[in-house]
Amino acid sequence: MIRADFALRHASQLATMLPREDDPLGRINDGALAAREGRVVWIGDDRDLEAQVTLDGDLLDAAGACVIPGLVDAHTHPVFAGSRADEFAERVSGVAYHAQQSGERGIARTVRATRDSDVVTLTELAAARANRFIANGTTTIEAKTGYGLDLEHEARSLEVLRQVAEQTRLRVIPTFLGAHVVPAGVDRRAYLRSLMDEMLPAFKPWAVFCDAWCEAPAFTAAETRAVLGRAKSLGYEIRVHAAQLAPGEGPDIAAELGARSADHLEFATPAQIKALAKAGTVAVLCPSANFTTRGPRPPIEAMREAKLPIAIASDLNPGTSNSESLPLAMSLACVQWGMTPVEVLAGATMHAAHSLKLDGLAGCLRPGSFADCIVVDAESPEAIPYYVGVNRVLQTVVGGAVWQPL
Amino acid sequence: MIRADFALRHASQLATMLPREDDPLGRINDGALAAREGRVVWIGDDRDLEAQVTLDGDLLDAAGACVIPGLVDAHTHPVFAGSRADEFAERVSGVAYHAQQSGERGIARTVRATRDSDVVTLTELAAARANRFIANGTTTIEAKTGYGLDLEHEARSLEVLRQVAEQTRLRVIPTFLGAHVVPAGVDRRAYLRSLMDEMLPAFKPWAVFCDAWCEAPAFTAAETRAVLGRAKSLGYEIRVHAAQLAPGEGPDIAAELGARSADHLEFATPAQIKALAKAGTVAVLCPSANFTTRGPRPPIEAMREAKLPIAIASDLNPGTSNSESLPLAMSLACVQWGMTPVEVLAGATMHAAHSLKLDGLAGCLRPGSFADCIVVDAESPEAIPYYVGVNRVLQTVVGGAVWQPL
Repeated sequence: MIRADFALRHASQLATMLPREDDPLGRINDGALAAREGRVVWIGDDRDLEAQVTLDGDLLDAAGACVIPGLVDAHTHPVFAGSRADEFAERVSGVAYHAQQSGERGIARTVRATRDSDVVTLTELAAARANRFIANGTTTIEAKTGYGLDLEHEARSLEVLRQVAEQTRLRVIPTFLGAHVVPAGVDRRAYLRSLMDEMLPAFKPWAVFCDAWCEAPAFTAAETRAVLGRAKSLGYEIRVHAAQLAPGEGPDIAAELGARSADHLEFATPAQIKALAKAGTVAVLCPSANFTTRGPRPPIEAMREAKLPIAIASDLNPGTSNSESLPLAMSLACVQWGMTPVEVLAGATMHAAHSLKLDGLAGCLRPGSFADCIVVDAESPEAIPYYVGVNRVLQTVVGGAVWQPL
Repeated sequence: MIRADFALRHASQLATMLPREDDPLGRINDGALAAREGRVVWIGDDRDLEAQVTLDGDLLDAAGACVIPGLVDAHTHPVFAGSRADEFAERVSGVAYHAQQSGERGIARTVRATRDSDVVTLTELAAARANRFIANGTTTIEAKTGYGLDLEHEARSLEVLRQVAEQTRLRVIPTFLGAHVVPAGVDRRAYLRSLMDEMLPAFKPWAVFCDAWCEAPAFTAAETRAVLGRAKSLGYEIRVHAAQLAPGEGPDIAAELGARSADHLEFATPAQIKALAKAGTVAVLCPSANFTTRGPRPPIEAMREAKLPIAIASDLNPGTSNSESLPLAMSLACVQWGMTPVEVLAGATMHAAHSLKLDGLAGCLRPGSFADCIVVDAESPEAIPYYVGVNRVLQTVVGGAVWQPL
């Protein structure tokens, strides 16, 4: 008998997200799982649960709903203050996103509002976002800094992420994004020097990943190579914000550095896509940001052909995607881009986990994985994107315990 | 002193949705309201509440969030069973919606599943949808039948709507939509005869409105004129599902009959739009259905120019819009169509209420109106569509009482 301190049963379909020859979702019909100390210890047919598992703890009855792994969001910006609702309204009236990035608007405006807030406020705001992530089915996020943009305020953003992970039960994987843009009023070369000589070494203990935005209005290819090359030599894993607004070298740099992810990629070329696939990089696509900026469709067919894994992310941020909902991003990727429900399910679980080096731990359900899963009011996992913009998540389980809003 | 049994206070912005010269949303900063027996009895500045109102009942503290009227959804199909998730998946892979309407697919499939369900099941399903409407901020819906399509099963759908209104606190305005499509396996002329001679007279006591879908694959212009002409002579108010998939006479018929609403209208011509405006009809646009069917943008500019009031609706239905969320529909109308936040707020409140003959009662807040409002976690009413696909509604008040999920 296997001992467990948590079990879930009566899942009409339990998607392990470990592809089998007969099913890309590796599903178990009428499935159950059991966990101990936060990890899955048993998964199988509901009818075998009682015979194989001794439970001393909570039993969650999925009552015929679907169960899938907790969603993994590979690209988010949850530490910020202030609103850019007026820029949203301007954009729907025809103003382009890049035209909003000059002077004290766009990202610069969020940087100012974030610096002007104290840690308590920033933590409250980010924790509220964490709770919305969990309520909408996400149990793990990659979380970028990038609205502090100096040693003091980037450190504070990392501290906020640490506190949010401690206060909520969301799993938070921090990414240092000092190379988001050059902050307003600072000499470009001086900022790059501080980034490379002060911030990168200082933050290594606190951030797994380093990210840079490689295109106007952010950093040139040469600057991106310098920053991320230095980050890599310090032991960071690399992510690159690449080819969102125009063609550019971002995807090449991601491939050269063996980045874990290249993000956005609306303007990536077929050759770049092949190079990313060869480098083992994951394409992290951001349908909600693409939607509100009315960006072009990313080259999905070239990605499929190159067998480049595609993750789907919310890109939560105050400028282009004020949404913690991965199910919405999945619906958008299906409707706008023609991705299939199976592709977006894999994109919001296993491929996203792979981009975060969490293979086998998050984004799948198997003995040894985190006991993170969601109970969804849907007739099948494939039906999840069919419910557009309404939250069908009935329960979120994190580390073998049902999440309750605070 | 005004006596009240419910009050709400500390709304950072309270939008009455009664336009003033200085503000199309008629907002009160730091506002409050009081209600008695389900109706608003006082509305004003928070600082005046205590001096002017004697409260014997619940006090809701909006704690600095925004307050707007409960949303009004002027086009929904909440009585159905069965799933068409596979048709959603087919469509994102390139199959057109109208190509899914032949044989036992599309609407015909939902009709079969609905007929095969008992009243208890249908009521449970519809009540779950009603609860999702309320949770997402909608307090009044127009609700169509149209998946029964014979005397017995259309009557049953109306009975389900009656029970849902009784069980939940959603305000449900029933529309008889026997003229949704001709049901599979039934002679077209025989169906039209039953519709006009049996169903229309029988259902008059139960439905305020009569609706018809005027275009292929549903009804011709001549059939629509016959059905809706008969309905009008029986005293029904008229709605017309018009020019969604192709140009056609639907909008003309709506104008001729003085319909309360003409719905969808993607292919309406400028002349038709002028005629609708002259007839006092409301354009009920359905952004979510337009989104999943990848329909063209409706002629918004021509509507603005003609001063045709535009309502925004969810069009909840299992084929093209599996979403009870009006905030999502509002976001989609902004991003996809370039409508402004002010336009979509008016469209989901006062114009929707006007199309349902609920002027002054629903979709606005003033002494005498229903005490239906929502407390929204947003910096302003205009910011609501900026939050895409996540539910920012903190509390829904229906008839002067805070709604709690059952």
